[in-house]
Amino acid sequence: MCTAATYQTKNTYFGRNLDYNISYGEEVCITPRNFPFTLRSGGSLESHYALIGIAYVPNENGTEYPLYYDAVNEKGVGMAGLNFVDNTFYQDPVDGKDNIASFEFIPWILGQCTNLTEVKTLLSRINLTNVTFSSELPPAELHWLITDSSNASIVVESTAHGLKIYDNPIGILTNNPPFEHQLLQLSNYQHLSAKEPVNNLAPKLSLPAYSRGMGAIGLPGDLSSESRFAKAAFTKLNSLSTSDELSSVNQFFHVLHSVEQQYGCCNLGDDQYEHTLYSSCYNLNEGIFYYTTYHNHQISAINLSKSNLEAAILTHQPIINTEQINYLN
Amino acid sequence: MCTAATYQTKNTYFGRNLDYNISYGEEVCITPRNFPFTLRSGGSLESHYALIGIAYVPNENGTEYPLYYDAVNEKGVGMAGLNFVDNTFYQDPVDGKDNIASFEFIPWILGQCTNLTEVKTLLSRINLTNVTFSSELPPAELHWLITDSSNASIVVESTAHGLKIYDNPIGILTNNPPFEHQLLQLSNYQHLSAKEPVNNLAPKLSLPAYSRGMGAIGLPGDLSSESRFAKAAFTKLNSLSTSDELSSVNQFFHVLHSVEQQYGCCNLGDDQYEHTLYSSCYNLNEGIFYYTTYHNHQISAINLSKSNLEAAILTHQPIINTEQINYLN
Amino acid sequence: MCTAATYQTKNTYFGRNLDYNISYGEEVCITPRNFPFTLRSGGSLESHYALIGIAYVPNENGTEYPLYYDAVNEKGVGMAGLNFVDNTFYQDPVDGKDNIASFEFIPWILGQCTNLTEVKTLLSRINLTNVTFSSELPPAELHWLITDSSNASIVVESTAHGLKIYDNPIGILTNNPPFEHQLLQLSNYQHLSAKEPVNNLAPKLSLPAYSRGMGAIGLPGDLSSESRFAKAAFTKLNSLSTSDELSSVNQFFHVLHSVEQQYGCCNLGDDQYEHTLYSSCYNLNEGIFYYTTYHNHQISAINLSKSNLEAAILTHQPIINTEQINYLN
Amino acid sequence: MCTAATYQTKNTYFGRNLDYNISYGEEVCITPRNFPFTLRSGGSLESHYALIGIAYVPNENGTEYPLYYDAVNEKGVGMAGLNFVDNTFYQDPVDGKDNIASFEFIPWILGQCTNLTEVKTLLSRINLTNVTFSSELPPAELHWLITDSSNASIVVESTAHGLKIYDNPIGILTNNPPFEHQLLQLSNYQHLSAKEPVNNLAPKLSLPAYSRGMGAIGLPGDLSSESRFAKAAFTKLNSLSTSDELSSVNQFFHVLHSVEQQYGCCNLGDDQYEHTLYSSCYNLNEGIFYYTTYHNHQISAINLSKSNLEAAILTHQPIINTEQINYLN
Repeated sequence: MCTAATYQTKNTYFGRNLDYNISYGEEVCITPRNFPFTLRSGGSLESHYALIGIAYVPNENGTEYPLYYDAVNEKGVGMAGLNFVDNTFYQDPVDGKDNIASFEFIPWILGQCTNLTEVKTLLSRINLTNVTFSSELPPAELHWLITDSSNASIVVESTAHGLKIYDNPIGILTNNPPFEHQLLQLSNYQHLSAKEPVNNLAPKLSLPAYSRGMGAIGLPGDLSSESRFAKAAFTKLNSLSTSDELSSVNQFFHVLHSVEQQYGCCNLGDDQYEHTLYSSCYNLNEGIFYYTTYHNHQISAINLSKSNLEAAILTHQPIINTEQINYLN
Repeated sequence: MCTAATYQTKNTYFGRNLDYNISYGEEVCITPRNFPFTLRSGGSLESHYALIGIAYVPNENGTEYPLYYDAVNEKGVGMAGLNFVDNTFYQDPVDGKDNIASFEFIPWILGQCTNLTEVKTLLSRINLTNVTFSSELPPAELHWLITDSSNASIVVESTAHGLKIYDNPIGILTNNPPFEHQLLQLSNYQHLSAKEPVNNLAPKLSLPAYSRGMGAIGLPGDLSSESRFAKAAFTKLNSLSTSDELSSVNQFFHVLHSVEQQYGCCNLGDDQYEHTLYSSCYNLNEGIFYYTTYHNHQISAINLSKSNLEAAILTHQPIINTEQINYLN
Repeated sequence: MCTAATYQTKNTYFGRNLDYNISYGEEVCITPRNFPFTLRSGGSLESHYALIGIAYVPNENGTEYPLYYDAVNEKGVGMAGLNFVDNTFYQDPVDGKDNIASFEFIPWILGQCTNLTEVKTLLSRINLTNVTFSSELPPAELHWLITDSSNASIVVESTAHGLKIYDNPIGILTNNPPFEHQLLQLSNYQHLSAKEPVNNLAPKLSLPAYSRGMGAIGLPGDLSSESRFAKAAFTKLNSLSTSDELSSVNQFFHVLHSVEQQYGCCNLGDDQYEHTLYSSCYNLNEGIFYYTTYHNHQISAINLSKSNLEAAILTHQPIINTEQINYLN
Repeated sequence: MCTAATYQTKNTYFGRNLDYNISYGEEVCITPRNFPFTLRSGGSLESHYALIGIAYVPNENGTEYPLYYDAVNEKGVGMAGLNFVDNTFYQDPVDGKDNIASFEFIPWILGQCTNLTEVKTLLSRINLTNVTFSSELPPAELHWLITDSSNASIVVESTAHGLKIYDNPIGILTNNPPFEHQLLQLSNYQHLSAKEPVNNLAPKLSLPAYSRGMGAIGLPGDLSSESRFAKAAFTKLNSLSTSDELSSVNQFFHVLHSVEQQYGCCNLGDDQYEHTLYSSCYNLNEGIFYYTTYHNHQISAINLSKSNLEAAILTHQPIINTEQINYLN
């Protein structure tokens, strides 16, 4: 379904795979500082930090609104919503809280926060509501990974038991079951190593390591959300790269692609197949957004700081989703 | 270490990941029809089918020789050598056989054969010898996947028990243990499905499929050769794409990248890390060679038919191994 | 650590493995109807249903008290406490609730209830307290499986989030993590079958079932609590026996022994090894208690109905823990 | 199907589970020294070492013959035949070899050998033939584990590639695939430990060992022959007991029962279920035979040295297969 990850070298990186069977026409979307976010519960964010990310941008009566899947702001706070079906519970609006519709959550946080401390302050006052964007667009059942340029991250889950906020020491999030469950399951994989296995079974005997890579035997490779959590955690935690931008971005996409969903391998019936529609990577320090798509292996990049941050109108462009092959003859 | 695969849509595709800790400077190399292959056991192939593929091309005393890792000929026969350490046994030259040094094996087969039937005829006369290319380049311990444009493939292993030739119904090859062992182990994964799991355990109870993709739980995700065999087989056997060239090539790289080795995740000690140096994809019908490298996600392509097939001199060019990012602003 | 299970043929059976590194001298203990249970929060159970089970029976100042590990009452309600370390949270006594110390929980329930409906009524009023039995015997961190002769069962967990009561559709309980987590994990094993595997991976190819029993590949066999939960569930759910007493009891012990902990296989350090100290089996309809121990494979049996149920004094006898071999010559 | 194991404390123990769907009426059978074994290829063993074990004893025209499943001789050499279907190939009789029908193999070896050195000498001359015992009893497809009181053991497989003899450093044998394959697969489990797992995955983080026994996560628990090989190896290699007879025998049965097949869990179709018909344990030094059966948990014992070793007539008795419960009231 989805996998989000963080990664740190000289800079901090953040991104996600969006896995689904169909695309809604999501685009690369920049929200400048003066695009007004009118809140459903009243009030608005007239001026805020600028955002870049992937959004579906419906146009209702001439007004565009960025429904972000994942984004980062100019201060290096990043946020991604991942499917959390059957576990999400949004509240009715209540008095005395910041009533934020689930589709407003990303702009609300990224528009106002410069780091996770500020995020937690906002979260302490928030009530995530079940208000719909429109009759065609009911609330998506999501949980969120939020990170800042320090490489710390938290998970936010709105469940029947209330709003849960967890520190995420691993920097990975997938889907069901809830994060606490996923994190506990990771204990079952703690012995996995990038090194050759230690022969605990029969130390007096020679049990050959007939292949390289045997120290991680037991790591799952299927596409379920628990398995992607473990595989992404292993790959991220063992990842190495030099600290320059190209190497860091390169390695980050290798992490995300390690849990990519290949077309055909997750059959939903009725000729529907969940696959990795896109993979995003944000340099949180520099505000650069990189992405690949299922049908285009080449990395594309857009730099938030090169756009007009003071504007009031959204800019968005279609994702490049056709294979860009470098023909050498 | 390495994974090779075949794939068929309208055309037939073949390729491999080369996983290793260091590069020897391998290049994209075209061997035209009249480049003379002098054989160590006497004789030569003066004229032969043209080849394209990845090779290390040493230059000894002004003479170049293509030591192919994987290649395809103009007739659509493809061949890749994969590490098979501790199981390979090459013979001393003997009378009455075609004595072919292991480094001559790819040119010998691809230079002369138009399909697997012809390959098998040559194999029936062959004696793979332990003759070295040079004192610095002793024979690599390999086994081979050979395929033709019909999408059939065979595995060739030269062991202490002699030359073994196996039909490969799966079209996947990795490394140790021997192919027969790998194929038998695949029986252990036969229940894995791209569909939702069937509840055999407690049919009267509701055991929720809390995530998509749970039908393949049990598929391994570590980097050992048995696990890559199973993961690549599952991914390839469930792969779907439209039959056009871009979609086919795109999907084939998704198959190979499903068993990619990420830098840091296979630690050999002494700061050496095995990773996927390159992934190759050959359109066997059209003679087009595509590749990605660890450090360049974009696909590069070279078309054999656009080169001068009648030439007598190798043409080779370095692999493009720097990330080619498409900067959009 | 521990595994409890239910099983139904003509009668209903219930029991558990107690896995630990040391024995506290637990005995087979019958509590007749008129043994007075004085409650720490005031009041007492002067007259109640008779109990049989395994208990440690400290004698303080001439007064014996049965600290039951597992027991059944004369009405066919059975109950077992299993280790639940780090997840258990007992409360301070409060007004308006039945304040029951954790060590009083089994007598409180089994002394008064004839079925799970009555159990749930008592649970609705209960506050499980942290009151200690004595300074040497602080409260054990436990959760409980409770079942009645209808074969229904529930799990009771006293956590930081309060007293949790779950219907248990599987009739299995082990240890950490909490029951809800364990039950969800069982979804990952739902495809496992006692039958030959279906070849979903490559339906057009022959992937031999080279062994019987391959339909359950993926079932874990280690001794951790999640793995014992899955293995015990699989074994119990597939178990078959004729419905007579000997066959039913026999099969029930086969289920428990399928998750037995062998001496040496769970090394706690300091020469301490967790192993299955005893396995108990209760015929809930007839009030017969059967047990095996690690050091005695033979089944021993005691019938509650043959004891003096109207007595006021505990009767207890040491567990037979020496191998009773039938020497035939 | 079957699992055989060795175990050593002060004495050496050997035995097996026989797993099958139906019993042929096998019995405990003692063959004294002067029971004549007439060989099908001519000649006979008129006088030989005495044997004890489990055999089906057909009576043809008043003559009994012990078709041993497993046995030990008075010199402490033990031998068990285990199913090896589709891999076994018996030869036609040939000149210049000891032509031994497969059903004569156990008496031939155990009748003449005092240790594995002598066994290997006999094996160097043997040709295992396809001669049938009778038209109703064609040769069973088997391979064998042979051990002596030194605790060394070998595996003998008669395949299409000839008679294979392997040293068995693990002292475990199950069924398909061939022993070499099974032993190589054991490398995949070499990291498994009876101790708490080492946190290699995220050494800087706390990943709790929420349960004891987590160091062996990855050990399989299904009933297929590869999984039983791994589980039995782990259990045996970690087994601890004191060195006295009762503790040693007790622990040996715990090892065998760790891979027991429970009734219902291996469904062959047509209401046929493979299960562990019996488990045998031989004290090789003392010639004592112990066994349990599926329907009788109590251990029964017969001492070879207490029988009349000089007799010429078989003595055999039915297996005790009814639960022997110790009723305490």
